[in-house]
Amino acid sequence: MTTSTTVETWQTKASAKQKSCLDKLPKEWLLPTSITDTLQTPLSNHAIPLIKLDIPRKSGLMSERELDITEKYDVAALLQTLRDGKFTALEVTVAFSKRAVIAQQLLSCLTETYFPEAQERARFLDKERSEGRIVGPLHGLPISVKDGFQILGSQATLGYVSFLDRVSDSNTPLVEILLKLGAVLYVKTNIPQTLMTADSHNNIFGRTLNPHNTSLGAGGSSGGEGALIAFRGSPLGIGTDITGSIRIPSQCCGIYGFKPTTSRIPYSGQSSVSRPGMAFFLPSAGPLANDMEAVSILSSAVIEARPAMFDSSALDVPWRPLLKNTNPKLRLGLLSEDPVFPLHPPVKRALANAARVLQAAGHEIIPIPASTAQVANATLLAWTYFGLDGTGMAHITAGNEPIIPSIIHIQKTFAQMDDSFCRDVEGLQGVPRVAALNVKRMGIAEGWRKVWSEQGLDAVISPAAQHTAVPHDTYGIPPYAAFLNLLDVSLVCT
Amino acid sequence: MTTSTTVETWQTKASAKQKSCLDKLPKEWLLPTSITDTLQTPLSNHAIPLIKLDIPRKSGLMSERELDITEKYDVAALLQTLRDGKFTALEVTVAFSKRAVIAQQLLSCLTETYFPEAQERARFLDKERSEGRIVGPLHGLPISVKDGFQILGSQATLGYVSFLDRVSDSNTPLVEILLKLGAVLYVKTNIPQTLMTADSHNNIFGRTLNPHNTSLGAGGSSGGEGALIAFRGSPLGIGTDITGSIRIPSQCCGIYGFKPTTSRIPYSGQSSVSRPGMAFFLPSAGPLANDMEAVSILSSAVIEARPAMFDSSALDVPWRPLLKNTNPKLRLGLLSEDPVFPLHPPVKRALANAARVLQAAGHEIIPIPASTAQVANATLLAWTYFGLDGTGMAHITAGNEPIIPSIIHIQKTFAQMDDSFCRDVEGLQGVPRVAALNVKRMGIAEGWRKVWSEQGLDAVISPAAQHTAVPHDTYGIPPYAAFLNLLDVSLVCT
Repeated sequence: MTTSTTVETWQTKASAKQKSCLDKLPKEWLLPTSITDTLQTPLSNHAIPLIKLDIPRKSGLMSERELDITEKYDVAALLQTLRDGKFTALEVTVAFSKRAVIAQQLLSCLTETYFPEAQERARFLDKERSEGRIVGPLHGLPISVKDGFQILGSQATLGYVSFLDRVSDSNTPLVEILLKLGAVLYVKTNIPQTLMTADSHNNIFGRTLNPHNTSLGAGGSSGGEGALIAFRGSPLGIGTDITGSIRIPSQCCGIYGFKPTTSRIPYSGQSSVSRPGMAFFLPSAGPLANDMEAVSILSSAVIEARPAMFDSSALDVPWRPLLKNTNPKLRLGLLSEDPVFPLHPPVKRALANAARVLQAAGHEIIPIPASTAQVANATLLAWTYFGLDGTGMAHITAGNEPIIPSIIHIQKTFAQMDDSFCRDVEGLQGVPRVAALNVKRMGIAEGWRKVWSEQGLDAVISPAAQHTAVPHDTYGIPPYAAFLNLLDVSLVCT
Repeated sequence: MTTSTTVETWQTKASAKQKSCLDKLPKEWLLPTSITDTLQTPLSNHAIPLIKLDIPRKSGLMSERELDITEKYDVAALLQTLRDGKFTALEVTVAFSKRAVIAQQLLSCLTETYFPEAQERARFLDKERSEGRIVGPLHGLPISVKDGFQILGSQATLGYVSFLDRVSDSNTPLVEILLKLGAVLYVKTNIPQTLMTADSHNNIFGRTLNPHNTSLGAGGSSGGEGALIAFRGSPLGIGTDITGSIRIPSQCCGIYGFKPTTSRIPYSGQSSVSRPGMAFFLPSAGPLANDMEAVSILSSAVIEARPAMFDSSALDVPWRPLLKNTNPKLRLGLLSEDPVFPLHPPVKRALANAARVLQAAGHEIIPIPASTAQVANATLLAWTYFGLDGTGMAHITAGNEPIIPSIIHIQKTFAQMDDSFCRDVEGLQGVPRVAALNVKRMGIAEGWRKVWSEQGLDAVISPAAQHTAVPHDTYGIPPYAAFLNLLDVSLVCT
């Protein structure tokens, strides 16, 4: 691409990476012009319902059996076929790989791909099975992972031009665990520049589109996962979430996502946008999938593998299965709308429906007042924590690349927020500033503890966002996701 | 004591508090001169084996039955007598109260006392029982708590003159839990100025002496607990530990102490020496007792009460009982001596004995190299974290009171330590400094994870200290305790 006398621009570096990624897609899996010619481009400017168009079938690239594998099984059933030998790990891997490549051509949802390695891995697993050994509870299951997870010898650039000369020199602990459990890793998925916005868009891997409507965002930061899984190019994916990054793409793409409590699914050893050691406000790793049971299968399998033996930051606490039928009548909190962040009609409707159905099933619904929930205050506080570290932006500068529009939008949105809740922290710097933020955080958590304990709650129903998927570069601050990271409690979203 | 025109010195303030504490000791429980006249004073200058002297019996203050209650039962057996009605809660409370008052006159181990309130509480519990209700698993058990735990309407000065005008306006969450479990709270116990040294000595409550030898320290910072429990003036106490403060007094006084993982036994809501929100290096709360089973009784009872419903900083993770007989052959790490902190002969001997006995019982002993354990590096790092916050010292200045000699000694010891492990942090301040310390901490934890996982360890045997109890004001830095706070794993000590 360049000679030694040429100064490389961010564009030439990004183009070289793009070409190398494209070159790794098997030619025989590229969409025929008979398909691509029918689509209005750029897709991001047109409201194309890609999932409805059923392109994998119409493309002729996938066999009937491959379509079945990717469409007709939830994760539990797929794992059963792999154990039973109804499908080989190889054919399951190839089916999802093909479909992921189709997705990539339409949605820009992938970053790194590992198709030859995945097939070799699948062959190994098939051989093990043929000799009577099931490697683990995820035997033969293709799993997609967000770009930041490191896989030895490949890249984890997070879409930063300045990370393009880095190569991962080891596997992230969670990758080690997934392999131990029998998974097949075949693709990594797209994310936003800095990971701190909900448009999964960067200058290397482009913009991930929403497969239901390509004029809308797929959400983020695990947006590649959201789009790929909704397109059924992956049965199960791993994302990360520090302010909704698993839940937002799940909601935008209509799939299930689970943000566990931090340090539960091990997080360490990823390529990171932050200064090393920034442990004041922690992210979670967690699953995304097309079915709810898959979320539980992944979480229990990983936690039963004892993550603390792989990652010293992980909690060494066994998986606790739900006790079935011991408390059939639940007391469920229902989060009230924060007046600062009004809910859009479809979100209100979904919440009201959920409450109605649950009440009809005999559960009690207890409204949580907005003054207790403190969604807006918690969101402001979360962003004030994030402001302690400018490293994510410095990596952009280091690559001489432009800031994506989504970040500029979210910065503007944040600047417009009423900041009175954090105004007394303004004059503080360094350790006293972090300590003061911690005190505010504890105060919000304590309010939640009180309502939880006084009302004897079993769980809380909350919107994942103010709205459903939105046009590109307009997502902004995600209050109904972020407040839960501040509290550091678990949430399932769809 | 003073008129409105008199400027109060720290001495007058401390004297007033001392008098008020002394006035609360029932006159009929004060030692007769026939006893006190036989003791060489000041006791701290003489090696008096108080426990051997059997003063509670010789004093004539305690009945045979009261001597039995305080001497012949471990906590499990005492709880059984309380449930059975062999002893009433009132007589158990009075027995331990009397003995605590005797201890206080000899050892300066108490701060606040609640004898009338405790007897009222005991009467309530006896009435409950007489009507067929056992209030909880700790029904009727007197429990002593370290001074920092707040009890509504009393003080938690931590020995600071500058805290003398504060009155607790609520119970610490753990106090609430203990009451819910049926405990009787009757005394709070002495601590060192700042809590950050192992001589439990301050300008209000004086110096706690070691009941085995009054010329030696009782350890700290939960030194009042150590001395009181060893003297059998309390069956069970609650201490706190950020660098050995439960384990050091346990070892110095020859009792059992347990430092759980942080956030397990709830810690919040205490009177604190730190800036609010300093959550970079967390302390643990945990039990001290004369028997090992007591430690488990307290921990399981508290954790089964679901502390997260009382304290939003507590982990919401159920108690896990030891699985008996599932793995009769354990793989036990044995911590090697760190060359920077050589072990004294009695400690070496105890460790070697423990290893020999365990090996003879069929367990495997695996030495952990000093280079992996990094005891000295972890200790330096812990103290560097503590240095982020000068609040503990500022509270001394605010009271215009002198710094105790023990703090001056520990500061000197720290200044003499080889600081090369943290030298690259020297130029950093604020958030980057904390982050850099976190990176070092993660590095040490990761080394431990590797050895733990590679060797398949079940537990590690470690000395609690370089030495046994030492002369007053000479304890210094506690490396073999502190490194475990840095790692934040559990340890039982005796």
